[in-house]
This record gives sequence, C-alpha cells and structure tokens, in this order.
Amino acid sequence: MTETKKTTIVLFSGDYDKAMAAYIIANGAAAYDHEVTIFHTFWGLNALRKDEPIQLKKSLPEKMFAKMMPRGADKMGLSKMNFAGFGPKMIKDVIKKHNALPLPQLIEMAQEQDVKLVACTMTMDLLGLQEQELLENIEYAGVAAYLADAEDGNVNLFI
Amino acid sequence: MTETKKTTIVLFSGDYDKAMAAYIIANGAAAYDHEVTIFHTFWGLNALRKDEPIQLKKSLPEKMFAKMMPRGADKMGLSKMNFAGFGPKMIKDVIKKHNALPLPQLIEMAQEQDVKLVACTMTMDLLGLQEQELLENIEYAGVAAYLADAEDGNVNLFI
Amino acid sequence: MTETKKTTIVLFSGDYDKAMAAYIIANGAAAYDHEVTIFHTFWGLNALRKDEPIQLKKSLPEKMFAKMMPRGADKMGLSKMNFAGFGPKMIKDVIKKHNALPLPQLIEMAQEQDVKLVACTMTMDLLGLQEQELLENIEYAGVAAYLADAEDGNVNLFI
Repeated sequence: MTETKKTTIVLFSGDYDKAMAAYIIANGAAAYDHEVTIFHTFWGLNALRKDEPIQLKKSLPEKMFAKMMPRGADKMGLSKMNFAGFGPKMIKDVIKKHNALPLPQLIEMAQEQDVKLVACTMTMDLLGLQEQELLENIEYAGVAAYLADAEDGNVNLFI
Repeated sequence: MTETKKTTIVLFSGDYDKAMAAYIIANGAAAYDHEVTIFHTFWGLNALRKDEPIQLKKSLPEKMFAKMMPRGADKMGLSKMNFAGFGPKMIKDVIKKHNALPLPQLIEMAQEQDVKLVACTMTMDLLGLQEQELLENIEYAGVAAYLADAEDGNVNLFI
Repeated sequence: MTETKKTTIVLFSGDYDKAMAAYIIANGAAAYDHEVTIFHTFWGLNALRKDEPIQLKKSLPEKMFAKMMPRGADKMGLSKMNFAGFGPKMIKDVIKKHNALPLPQLIEMAQEQDVKLVACTMTMDLLGLQEQELLENIEYAGVAAYLADAEDGNVNLFI
C-alpha cells in the first residue's frame, strides 16, 4: 500500500512564464497521481481572472487594481524580456510552433486532471477581486488551508 | 506523540509584497505550532534593517549599497506595479482598510510568536550590512545552519 | 544506516544573484552529502550557456532569443539594482574583495561535487537552445525526471 504523494504550489507571481512553470509542474505531478494544489495569491490571482470585464461595485483603489492587473492568463506579461508585450507574443508563437500548450490550456488541463485551484481570500480582499470575476470551480481559502495541504506535501514550491 | 512540524523559508526577495507573503505564511505556521525559521539573504535582509540611519565605517561600495537599498520593511517596494512608490502606498491603504497587518507589524508578530529570524552572514558581508543596522533578536548564520533546519522541514520555501 | 538526503532545486530565474543563491545552497547541500539536482528551466538555462558564440541553424525567433539572452553565467544581470550592468560589476567586486566565489566558479564547484545539472528539454525547445550551446556534463530531461527527484526530496526549492 503506497501513500498518495502531494504537490502544493503557491503561485504568487503574475508572470506568464512563471505561471506556465507552475502549471506544467502541476499537470506533470497530477499525471503521476499526486494530489495537487495550486494556491493563488497576490498577482497569481490574475491567472484565474475571466477575460471579459465584469461590472461590480468597487472602491477607487479596487477599480485601479482591476484596471491595471491583467484580466486572465492570456494577458499576463513575462518576468523577463517582456518588451511591452512583444515578448509574450514571441513566447506564444514558439509554444504554438512546438505544439506546446499555452497557459489558458494548461489551466484547463489542470482542471480536467482535478488539480485543486485555490484563490487566497485575504489577497482577493486586498486587491478587490470578487468571486464572480474568477473562473468556475475555484476553491476559496486562506493560509490555514494552504498549510494543512503543504505540511504533508512531498513537493512544496513558491513560484 | 506527534513530532513538531517545521517550516523554513528563505527570504531572498526585497519586495514588500513577497516579504508579506513570507511573513503571513510564517505567522500562520507558528500559530499551528510549527517550528518556523525565516532565513534572510541578499535583498531580503532589508526587511530586517532598522529605519534610522546608523553611522558606521564603510567602504565605498558598502556605502552605495546602504544608500540604495531600502532601510527597513516599511520602505520596500512592490514586485509588480511599484509605480515609483505609488503602488506600495496603495497596498498599505488597502491593508489598513481591511484591518490586515502591514509588514513591520507582521515582523513584530513573528518575533512574538518565536519565529526564528536569521540573517545570512555571507550576504551581509557582500552588501556591507552590519549587526548594529539590523533589528534586535536576530540570529546570524550561514548556509550550513539553513540546511540543518531545512533538511527536516515539512514546508520549505524560497521566496 | 541513514538514508541519503536529497536537495532538488528548480532554477527558473536568469538573474545572477538568484542563481548564486541556488548554487550556494546546492554546494552547501552537496558538502553535507545530500544528493543534489539543479533543474534549469526557462531563463535559468542561461547559466549553462557557453560564453563563446556557437554557429547553429536557427529560426528567427530562436536567433532573437539567442541574441537577447545572456550568454553564460558571467553575463547575467541582477534581480535588483541592475543599473544597466553596473550592479553586477559592484557585486562581482565585493565578491572578489570578500574572497567569495563568483557564479561561474560556483557552477564549476557544483560539477566537481557531482551536483546533477539538468537542462529542461521542453524550455530549450521553446527558447531554441541546443545542446552544443550548453556546458559539458549536463543532463537533459523533462518535468517527469524533475518530479521523480523532487518527490523524495528533503529540500525542494523553486528559485
């Protein structure tokens, strides 16, 4: 009898390339039957935003964050060589050429593989993000739930 | 009889938001009775700097680092949307509005909860930081001490 | 009979200072008889590039990546205070003054200590990097090999 292995990733970064790395590791771990959780916090929450604008009552700083932050995985920039959006285009071109998966499809695949996608409620509050703005089938939790997952984890990463 | 769980975080980043994430996880883990260590290295050392200027004999590059690096947690910038200091102000405003704790208070709370705060002596040497410039009740150690903590850890993160 | 401890680091970052931290931890862990692996992916692959230009047939985006990315560890920039290359010079000066090891020597030492250096084949494809461009004695593998190392690891870090 073998125990299920666990992979728990904090996705803090809002960069396209870092989120890709997180989701590639997550999908790989799920394929190897790990129980996988990605805990999205701070800028990492943007990977879970829907790409259409959602009309919601927001305070001024919340409106500013909503406007300045990328609306969904496809709109995120690169951590290096972003070049005002040219870098992401180049990366997406080579992804396509190599038949690799772009970030939105990596997220879909993770959901199909039952990777648990969690949005950090505390940082949602700070950035003024509401549940209606995020993808379906997301769980909402705080640092206590993260630690409960991570403390028995085999692979714990902060990305 | 259960063994004490261990959380060991390397705080490499000098960004306000990343340091917040590190300290929120550390305080959460301490509340769940983990033995918690934050090992501050490179720019992460700035979170431990006192905010007043300290007169010390320094070489020219040491003076430049001392001048260019933020003096203490409250002066650190954001990893994203820093906008020449406007981003940190916005974050601090929403932290206040949501009754969350700003970084300096998160550090105080960590000290009250006996989170072990360690400053990496090797990178202190490189950046010319001296013990008198850092907060009280900090431990000083190198990579060997970090590994001794981390190798038995349940949650190991590099932030 | 004690089991060998394992340290497995994903080096995603192409920053000189972050790569230094990765290699210092790796060399420390190897000195404590850990089995150590550094899995280089995305911009972290640049730490493994040879410093001389290699003539290879490449597509246009591959040529652009090759040109824009630093050719080898010594040419990488800092994550903070890069100041158009002035920051790395300052860091290298203080490293020399303190008899610490610069990044290329840290990599050599890792190879001498049998740290397993792996290049991620999937991101090599995306960035158009070929084996001839990277240092000797590198292993080539994908996310499955990474997970096989990491899932039994004591210290797992994403840098």
